[in-house]
Amino acid sequence: MKKISICALLLFSVFLLTSKIYAIGKSQHDLPYAVSEQTKICILCHKNVTPGIVEDWKTSRHSKITPEIALKKTALERRVSSQTIPEDIRPVVVGCYECHSQNISQHKDSFEHFGFWINVIVSPNDCRTCHAVEVEQFSGSKKAYALDNLRENPVYQKFVDAIPGIKEVGDKSIRCLIPSENSRRETCYACHGTEITVDGMKEIQTNTGSIEVPNLQNWPNQGVGRINPDGSRGACTACHPRHSFSIEIARKPYTCSQCHLEPDIPAYEVYCESKHGNIFLTKQDTWNWNNVPWKVGKDFQAPTCAACHNSLLVTPEGKEVVSRTHDFGSRLWVRIFGLIYSHPQPKNGKTYEIENKDGLPLPVTFMNEPAVEYLIDEEEQLLRKKEMKKVCNSCHSTDWVMGHFEKLDTTIIETDTMVLNTTNLMKNMWDNGFADASNPFDELIELLWVKEWFFYANSIRFASAMIGADHATFKNGWWQLTENFHEIYEYSKKCESGH
Amino acid sequence: MKKISICALLLFSVFLLTSKIYAIGKSQHDLPYAVSEQTKICILCHKNVTPGIVEDWKTSRHSKITPEIALKKTALERRVSSQTIPEDIRPVVVGCYECHSQNISQHKDSFEHFGFWINVIVSPNDCRTCHAVEVEQFSGSKKAYALDNLRENPVYQKFVDAIPGIKEVGDKSIRCLIPSENSRRETCYACHGTEITVDGMKEIQTNTGSIEVPNLQNWPNQGVGRINPDGSRGACTACHPRHSFSIEIARKPYTCSQCHLEPDIPAYEVYCESKHGNIFLTKQDTWNWNNVPWKVGKDFQAPTCAACHNSLLVTPEGKEVVSRTHDFGSRLWVRIFGLIYSHPQPKNGKTYEIENKDGLPLPVTFMNEPAVEYLIDEEEQLLRKKEMKKVCNSCHSTDWVMGHFEKLDTTIIETDTMVLNTTNLMKNMWDNGFADASNPFDELIELLWVKEWFFYANSIRFASAMIGADHATFKNGWWQLTENFHEIYEYSKKCESGH
Amino acid sequence: MKKISICALLLFSVFLLTSKIYAIGKSQHDLPYAVSEQTKICILCHKNVTPGIVEDWKTSRHSKITPEIALKKTALERRVSSQTIPEDIRPVVVGCYECHSQNISQHKDSFEHFGFWINVIVSPNDCRTCHAVEVEQFSGSKKAYALDNLRENPVYQKFVDAIPGIKEVGDKSIRCLIPSENSRRETCYACHGTEITVDGMKEIQTNTGSIEVPNLQNWPNQGVGRINPDGSRGACTACHPRHSFSIEIARKPYTCSQCHLEPDIPAYEVYCESKHGNIFLTKQDTWNWNNVPWKVGKDFQAPTCAACHNSLLVTPEGKEVVSRTHDFGSRLWVRIFGLIYSHPQPKNGKTYEIENKDGLPLPVTFMNEPAVEYLIDEEEQLLRKKEMKKVCNSCHSTDWVMGHFEKLDTTIIETDTMVLNTTNLMKNMWDNGFADASNPFDELIELLWVKEWFFYANSIRFASAMIGADHATFKNGWWQLTENFHEIYEYSKKCESGH
Repeated sequence: MKKISICALLLFSVFLLTSKIYAIGKSQHDLPYAVSEQTKICILCHKNVTPGIVEDWKTSRHSKITPEIALKKTALERRVSSQTIPEDIRPVVVGCYECHSQNISQHKDSFEHFGFWINVIVSPNDCRTCHAVEVEQFSGSKKAYALDNLRENPVYQKFVDAIPGIKEVGDKSIRCLIPSENSRRETCYACHGTEITVDGMKEIQTNTGSIEVPNLQNWPNQGVGRINPDGSRGACTACHPRHSFSIEIARKPYTCSQCHLEPDIPAYEVYCESKHGNIFLTKQDTWNWNNVPWKVGKDFQAPTCAACHNSLLVTPEGKEVVSRTHDFGSRLWVRIFGLIYSHPQPKNGKTYEIENKDGLPLPVTFMNEPAVEYLIDEEEQLLRKKEMKKVCNSCHSTDWVMGHFEKLDTTIIETDTMVLNTTNLMKNMWDNGFADASNPFDELIELLWVKEWFFYANSIRFASAMIGADHATFKNGWWQLTENFHEIYEYSKKCESGH
Repeated sequence: MKKISICALLLFSVFLLTSKIYAIGKSQHDLPYAVSEQTKICILCHKNVTPGIVEDWKTSRHSKITPEIALKKTALERRVSSQTIPEDIRPVVVGCYECHSQNISQHKDSFEHFGFWINVIVSPNDCRTCHAVEVEQFSGSKKAYALDNLRENPVYQKFVDAIPGIKEVGDKSIRCLIPSENSRRETCYACHGTEITVDGMKEIQTNTGSIEVPNLQNWPNQGVGRINPDGSRGACTACHPRHSFSIEIARKPYTCSQCHLEPDIPAYEVYCESKHGNIFLTKQDTWNWNNVPWKVGKDFQAPTCAACHNSLLVTPEGKEVVSRTHDFGSRLWVRIFGLIYSHPQPKNGKTYEIENKDGLPLPVTFMNEPAVEYLIDEEEQLLRKKEMKKVCNSCHSTDWVMGHFEKLDTTIIETDTMVLNTTNLMKNMWDNGFADASNPFDELIELLWVKEWFFYANSIRFASAMIGADHATFKNGWWQLTENFHEIYEYSKKCESGH
Repeated sequence: MKKISICALLLFSVFLLTSKIYAIGKSQHDLPYAVSEQTKICILCHKNVTPGIVEDWKTSRHSKITPEIALKKTALERRVSSQTIPEDIRPVVVGCYECHSQNISQHKDSFEHFGFWINVIVSPNDCRTCHAVEVEQFSGSKKAYALDNLRENPVYQKFVDAIPGIKEVGDKSIRCLIPSENSRRETCYACHGTEITVDGMKEIQTNTGSIEVPNLQNWPNQGVGRINPDGSRGACTACHPRHSFSIEIARKPYTCSQCHLEPDIPAYEVYCESKHGNIFLTKQDTWNWNNVPWKVGKDFQAPTCAACHNSLLVTPEGKEVVSRTHDFGSRLWVRIFGLIYSHPQPKNGKTYEIENKDGLPLPVTFMNEPAVEYLIDEEEQLLRKKEMKKVCNSCHSTDWVMGHFEKLDTTIIETDTMVLNTTNLMKNMWDNGFADASNPFDELIELLWVKEWFFYANSIRFASAMIGADHATFKNGWWQLTENFHEIYEYSKKCESGH
């Protein structure tokens, strides 16, 4: 490896000695103040090889303020949460080197790059240097375990096995081939995250010559539950994309919409068709998206995903309404999607550790018995509901808010009842051999059953929670829930009558 | 009740005497000029209990101008349409108290609130104080009767009964349980509106203590055809959301998109995929959304829903193009959605009063005979078409516009023909006992038939009217119209062959 | 015709002599400098009859700069590409007359209009006067032949025949009536373009009286492959809408979304759910949309459709990244939509000239044999991939980009395999007489087969190419690809078992 890095250094020298050096040197004047010497050298090349991200970073707060100054803000205004930040990065703005050189010894993706040890991937554990509280909150959440919650759960693996793989016509039935790693990465793991491993080094041809880089597997991926080469979990860039790390981006619903989309999680679409969404879409350009803390009514006049679920909000006079959280379920008492039935939020982010009465790692059984010991109790549910109501009460009267959540409570019961009625039909087919329960997701009738809860009951609950009439009714709502129930019923009748 | 209100006043006094009073007193300087004494007191508390809406109101025109000044504008510039406005509210800006204290004797939702009689809901009849013409126009429209047009029409009630209720497996068929009030509110009535009634008073726990409030039923709801506790019809807030009442919001298509969405009413989606939508989405931030009157070409360069359907438009030199209307059908001659077939617009907003040749309250029979005496005649149709064409002619040549509407005319005929062919298949099944016509919407084959007209023929007509190719073709267009027709045909063949 | 034009001139004179003349005369001061005398006269009337487009034009660059000045820009900054521009239009801004009077002798839609010969439609051949290179690039592209590629291809005509026409119940099966010209125009040809012909003159009634105009057929239409009355191909206005001809509009994805929409071409939806789309949707209002050349990172921080597919991009320091092209396939090596299987890009825009081993004008056979001699070879594919990678490399590392396209390569293979497995099922049904191959698109089972490749395999490939997880998975992705495969399989089993 040494040989190659010497070669790289030579290459680098040649590069510096070309005519470009003077032009670059001159334009260093564009750089923000207090850039570290190392970052200056990064930019010297990357200004030419990846100019887009250098410019993007220049628009960022990272490029404009040092941790030292950031630490002096008042508690509510502060965006760094670590109590202490290492001496060496405190007086410089947060540039390339400051992030890509953290905790090198833990990074299997670290490599010598033109004289520096550089990590390809900046992980939550690296961000922790300045943002310790956010990383801590995130690290226990369901999002942090998004990959393992899928990969380590044999029921979900059956689901994954049944969908994104190639199907062949077998002797008597369809053969579902095990989905390739590629296909998993393009589908489920695109959001849930991949496990990035390092398989030695490889030589690649770049625009500026041949270089040696770590041979990353399952890369690129920006899934929120990614497992990184340093062993940490998560990808902060899933919501704070490189290299502006803009709080505006994280606060706007477009970010959440990368994963929370219909038909399975129509959060974004329901938001857009809600009154909140209407006001956001109309007035967004007049709002203050960068203020910390975020002032209800003053900085924005309708909530976005972030406002309700995780932002620190204060009144126009500066009184805290709710505190910031990066455990995105912490203001939620009930989980309305993803599972066969609604259920109280799991106590722990590792949902694959749940064991219900059927012995399955699911928070509810197929017949809707909750695995209560793994789920938050009523007291905790009330606490979280109260927290969420604080956000609502910023604009709505207490009675309005009560009425709103009473509707949601009833809708949850009604949709779960519909799903139970459907599951009873399905269970009959399993029990009578008209379908094979060994994988409950790989036959046509089973797919119809899944749609009932995974698409339609979900949509109705999202529509109720966020007031979007279309998704309660004709867009994956009661219409489809009803039509699909009819189809399942007719199918089961046909099975029974032998046709 | 008196006892409770004394208690409330005491509570209020305690509140005033706490430390908050000084802080609040100081920040009264933020308030606009000419705020009434009553509204000042409202804000004193609500600045803390619901700060978001207080700030939102501060961004509104209501907070910045008194009716007195508003009345002095020229006819075209004026936003208040009442000839006379009561003395007491003329010299103050339109604040909390000015709206929430109108016509108290008519409001069953009026209650004593810290010393004032306050209506929870501000109704169209209250807005009439200043906006009489708009309320008058609205009050005769189909939108004003949106709830009764559903509730009082036995055919539509069968539709409602068949969809948003729980389904059970019965002895020989599916049992459609009558949908709960909750489910109706979440689905159909979310847009059509609920009837808000008052069931006495109730005590609720707020952040600032226990208070007594009217016990509203079917609340919250913002449906456009809501029936209010004062007996009036409509919710101005459906399109002019609280508390900015921004004309910008009403003029942008996001507002209309809360209800007019695919698959049944794809107005918003078709608009977005049209050339008009393209230009709007690209250039909206450079347009003047608040100008009254709205200058074609100067203030905006492509129409939104409002521009075509209800705004007052003038040329850049101030000549009126079309006048403002809040009867949203008044520039429309044909009704292209919601019913089995297209038909001339109903004469009257109360469509449940129609009686067609089958004796049903529908503007067309199942076999496409229009109930002509209830529908506008050809002369009126031409008048309305002419009105709409004035909007088109602001940018398009006469020949262009003629060609455009000729296409629409033909598309209406073709889609109605397709639906008639489908209905003939359906009628055969009803006549031959393969389906039960007692409720024409509650069997699987009937749902397919409904989709043919309610989703697909509708979409194609919207796509034609507003030039959105996708919805004419592959997105609920001719593709789905065709595929679904095949399905219905195969189903009917199977019935006939006894399988 | 002479008689009528004299009559028109008289009418015009009367119009000028009315009171309007003074107001108009006065407001000529609003006009930009260097407007030609002819255009001034156009505006004199059109300011009143179509004020919207006059105002829109005033916002355009065309109204603000003369070709003379435009020609003086540096090569990279220049927006006109013709080497020479005729003397008469060089010193004036580009107004109504300058465009609508080009090449009159070639225009069958030219007519005498108040003393001037005016073409109704401005065609690419007219735009060529100043934008020769762009018109040249476009003229050989698939887009230029979008109409003929549909109309002259008998296989596609069968597709068209099967979908947007009225269906009737025949004796033993469904009768698919040949779609009307109207329906073709509303669906396929809305995007692909119509052939605009001229059938003499006709008299029409306008707001300012009766005038004679060319009797255009298949008009209005803005399809990108339109054939114009001067024989030229294309409609520049498909992407550069009248009359602002704004580069901002062409650069924003809303333009492309008019045709490239799900379910068949979900380019826009996938973009919106990608990280690129997230950043665009959040930050678009802070970007420079009008700069030429377009500076990566400086003017914009995430690519739009235009940035990747056709814009001239430079680094912040002005070094060219990729050159401008109006052959929209020229940075593409593989074609991932529209056909049964993915395949290398056709060599020539006229795809109807292809002949594959089945003797059909399709780039692949039904069993996935490519018509290699009509498709670009591996070397050309690599060249184009390299060109596209230059765009990616502006922000992403070489390894990132390699990993990204390796995923796409694999996904293409996997989806094509799934389609082949489905086509084998379909072929069996054709071979065994369970379906009729004479038109492979007009039976229910055939429609299911088409959805497999035309909707679902397409969506997965778009999702892979642009990283949108939803469309790979649950939104027309592997879920629907799988469910639909199950349906086709069950259908084929039923056929075989005789039910």
